[in-house]
Amino acid sequence: MRILGIDPGTIRCGYAIIESFPKLKLIDAGFIKITEKELQYQLSQLIEGLDLILENQIDEVAIEDIFYAYNPKTVLKLAQFRGALSLRILQKHGFFAEYTPLQVKKAVTGNGKAKKEQVAFMVKRILGIKGDIKPLDITDAIAVAITHSQRIKC
Amino acid sequence: MRILGIDPGTIRCGYAIIESFPKLKLIDAGFIKITEKELQYQLSQLIEGLDLILENQIDEVAIEDIFYAYNPKTVLKLAQFRGALSLRILQKHGFFAEYTPLQVKKAVTGNGKAKKEQVAFMVKRILGIKGDIKPLDITDAIAVAITHSQRIKC
Repeated sequence: MRILGIDPGTIRCGYAIIESFPKLKLIDAGFIKITEKELQYQLSQLIEGLDLILENQIDEVAIEDIFYAYNPKTVLKLAQFRGALSLRILQKHGFFAEYTPLQVKKAVTGNGKAKKEQVAFMVKRILGIKGDIKPLDITDAIAVAITHSQRIKC
Repeated sequence: MRILGIDPGTIRCGYAIIESFPKLKLIDAGFIKITEKELQYQLSQLIEGLDLILENQIDEVAIEDIFYAYNPKTVLKLAQFRGALSLRILQKHGFFAEYTPLQVKKAVTGNGKAKKEQVAFMVKRILGIKGDIKPLDITDAIAVAITHSQRIKC
């Protein structure tokens, strides 16, 4: 089963496609870079990127929830991005799974308060990847996909 | 020219279609009621409602910006709703105008800090409507459309 994990961001939106069976395997990962300055152009750029990703064979989609960060402007933008991503996935794929950052960190590292670097370390270990995967938006997205693979096994 | 004004909300999303020429005239107004409990169903319900509205003849669309309200949970939901609304309008109509609540209140009442009741009073006066228009989500949406009609005249 192929799982698409998405970690919404305002500058980079990380994504990862993993194969969950017979063993976890990374198929593709990267990020959609938002270079536009105005919201409507940013949304268009984000969804164009998502559409390309959705051309892959994907069985399940999981998106990380956003939490109430410190910067109000960022929260408003990020939440609007997530709303547009959600709608597009509903349109092209149907319902999707949602996990909080705490759930994702706990599933991958055993610690809901783990730092991004720990998440990256565990993601590479779980998938048997030796090299670096950067930026951390990508390892976060892989972690979302891994979280979902664990959930659907239960 | 027909203008669709939208006032995003988490329980009711107000909308109004006005004719801006030769004189301001209310064509249709109402709200999309969100009764679903989960985000994905809520987004689907919201966009189904929007699609019905977009079946009308509409030349321009204006959406009210959201501001950083007090309840974080509401802000996160409202911003995701607005992101989905924005994407759908981009898909079906193209770029749209955006106005802050302050701009809308100022355009309609002359006071950026006017209360919703004052906005409703002025909206009815501008359009020559005698009866009541309720709830205030609708008069807010009409105010957004009026604001845009004033802006495109300049």
